[in-house]
Amino acid sequence: MTSTYSLAVVAGDGIGPEVTDQALKVLDVVAQGSGLTFDRTAYDLGARRWHATGETLPDTVLEEIRGHDAILLGAVGDPSVPSGVLERGLLLRLRFELDHYVNLRPSKLFPGVPTPLADPGEIDFVVVREGTEGPYVGNGGAIRVGTPHEVATEVSLNTAFGVERVVRDAFARAQARPRRKLTLVHKNNVLVHAGHLWSRTVEAVGAEFPDVTVDYLHVDAATIFLATDPGRFDVIVTDNLFGDILTDLAAAITGGIGLAASGNVNPDRTSPSMFEPVHGSAPDIAGQSKADPTAAILSAGLLLEHLGHAAEAQRITAAVEADIAARDGQPRSTQEVGEAIAERVATEVPVA
Amino acid sequence: MTSTYSLAVVAGDGIGPEVTDQALKVLDVVAQGSGLTFDRTAYDLGARRWHATGETLPDTVLEEIRGHDAILLGAVGDPSVPSGVLERGLLLRLRFELDHYVNLRPSKLFPGVPTPLADPGEIDFVVVREGTEGPYVGNGGAIRVGTPHEVATEVSLNTAFGVERVVRDAFARAQARPRRKLTLVHKNNVLVHAGHLWSRTVEAVGAEFPDVTVDYLHVDAATIFLATDPGRFDVIVTDNLFGDILTDLAAAITGGIGLAASGNVNPDRTSPSMFEPVHGSAPDIAGQSKADPTAAILSAGLLLEHLGHAAEAQRITAAVEADIAARDGQPRSTQEVGEAIAERVATEVPVA
Ligand SMILES: CC(C)[C@H](C(=O)O)[C@@H](O)C(=O)O
Ligand SMILES: CC(C)[C@H](C(=O)O)[C@@H](O)C(=O)O
Repeated sequence: MTSTYSLAVVAGDGIGPEVTDQALKVLDVVAQGSGLTFDRTAYDLGARRWHATGETLPDTVLEEIRGHDAILLGAVGDPSVPSGVLERGLLLRLRFELDHYVNLRPSKLFPGVPTPLADPGEIDFVVVREGTEGPYVGNGGAIRVGTPHEVATEVSLNTAFGVERVVRDAFARAQARPRRKLTLVHKNNVLVHAGHLWSRTVEAVGAEFPDVTVDYLHVDAATIFLATDPGRFDVIVTDNLFGDILTDLAAAITGGIGLAASGNVNPDRTSPSMFEPVHGSAPDIAGQSKADPTAAILSAGLLLEHLGHAAEAQRITAAVEADIAARDGQPRSTQEVGEAIAERVATEVPVA
Repeated sequence: MTSTYSLAVVAGDGIGPEVTDQALKVLDVVAQGSGLTFDRTAYDLGARRWHATGETLPDTVLEEIRGHDAILLGAVGDPSVPSGVLERGLLLRLRFELDHYVNLRPSKLFPGVPTPLADPGEIDFVVVREGTEGPYVGNGGAIRVGTPHEVATEVSLNTAFGVERVVRDAFARAQARPRRKLTLVHKNNVLVHAGHLWSRTVEAVGAEFPDVTVDYLHVDAATIFLATDPGRFDVIVTDNLFGDILTDLAAAITGGIGLAASGNVNPDRTSPSMFEPVHGSAPDIAGQSKADPTAAILSAGLLLEHLGHAAEAQRITAAVEADIAARDGQPRSTQEVGEAIAERVATEVPVA
């Protein structure tokens, strides 16, 4: 069987293009010999385009992207652009317009990876971060800006529809994992309206998944456990903002954001899902070939998995694991890391 | 000179009364011989009262409390009470009504304290968490509750008045510390209206404090640095919710919430400030004399400092440091820890 996929590539800003190049290289190696073809269309979006044209994501481009099977994204954001313009106008617009309601962020401590924790134990959990609601909806505003009477608001919007679908997805993922454990993270003792909607929804949907053990943590307590007992987590389901915060911390304890992959998934497949490293555009090291492309490469693995090619995805994970185990602390360029992983994918026989 | 202070004591729920007892014991020892007297009024507020009367914080009680010089609080919240009722109705009501706009949370890694970090370095920073605005205002609601069409909102309210006063307080604190560094933590690339108000305010107020170095971190990145390089922080100023999250993580890396003290401060002294451990009511270990009262004791130290008795506060800190250095991992009861620290305060000559 051969399959041809159309891939929209948004390399973006800063280190985005550098790490995306390596992810595409690895994807090509996997594709070869497995009957997969990825037809790529590169979209020039991000700081350069905004400076040149004032555009972040024109409607016509969004519609073109929508026609693809999947999206590979590098990173978005640049200090030369006012904070929020590209994040809201490009990255979040893609997530919202394409209804990426499952923002999937696995955290696994690979053997040999340096972690800031003295006694990390086994870390292997996945955060299912809601991707289309919460404080990220962009439903805020301000009056009397720049005066002593300025008032600025941010509204967190949460719907039964939106919470239930992501909670159900998280339960299904928990059900499919050996430990079958789901932790809801929120702040339902303060954000009572949103929090109680989440708690009630987890309780209700949980009835359909009697095998899954459920617990609840306030977001502040969850950060404590991520530092002191990360092994307690299996699947975390949480709101958009809490998920943002927890997954950076989760990345930090599992070797850093250089390794953290993510998928912005539309499980209903009504639009293409988008895969990107958790890290940002890192303008301080952009163009120096210093960025670790591993997170971008692992994100390409998540993309393969989403498209139904679990064995091919596993080849990437195995190659990354092997590469990490062989790391000796010597600095390597972005290309060198990408090539080393591509080489392993090409030559190593996958363990089934 | 002798000074008499009136102290409102809200021991609260769970381990609250146990740890508060020890804090009061230590406070009494400090008071003896230093010419200080603390007249105490205990307020029976929390789960018991709510079950008995349905009251969280009656207006008349609030007015009585308002007449005191300071408040010592244990912990609030119990699983037998719907989540949010006591937190919003009692704890947050006190913080808001008494205009505790500076929620002060120092984080210091004392020698000998176990930390989950492999290489913590020197940790000594203070979080100035805004206490009267942001997503904590209770300005949310819900429609069609319990139906598939439920919509729940939470509104973060931020005013120039509210942000400026806490930012100015944080700058003054940074100015008074050796490193003179202030880090604003927010999420101004997503919560653009609130975030830009914070960023502009820090820039404007910063002009009055030319000696203070300023930087900015997104909240997600801040959690990474707390895990990988906590020594980079000196003073953090941040919003109410981000401060809640960061200070639990900060507590985790500096020995746990058993050691983390806090002050809900009204710097204008138009109402009494309130001092409490960062930890919650920990119902799972309540009544078992297992709780560590150190955080409550250190909070009494912050209370002394706020009332202008820095030398007496220092006696508490020194006694706690000495007690911690002598800990050998053997479990001690809440009383034993309290007595050991009280004993040290009574006998050790303070290093000036
Ligand atoms: C760049 C930013 C808008 C984004 C987010 O907040 O979601 C990033 O932090 C992430 O986690 O993907
Ligand atoms: C109990 C809760 C309302 C409170 C808060 O969120 O502020 C607590 O977590 C804290 O940090 O003091």
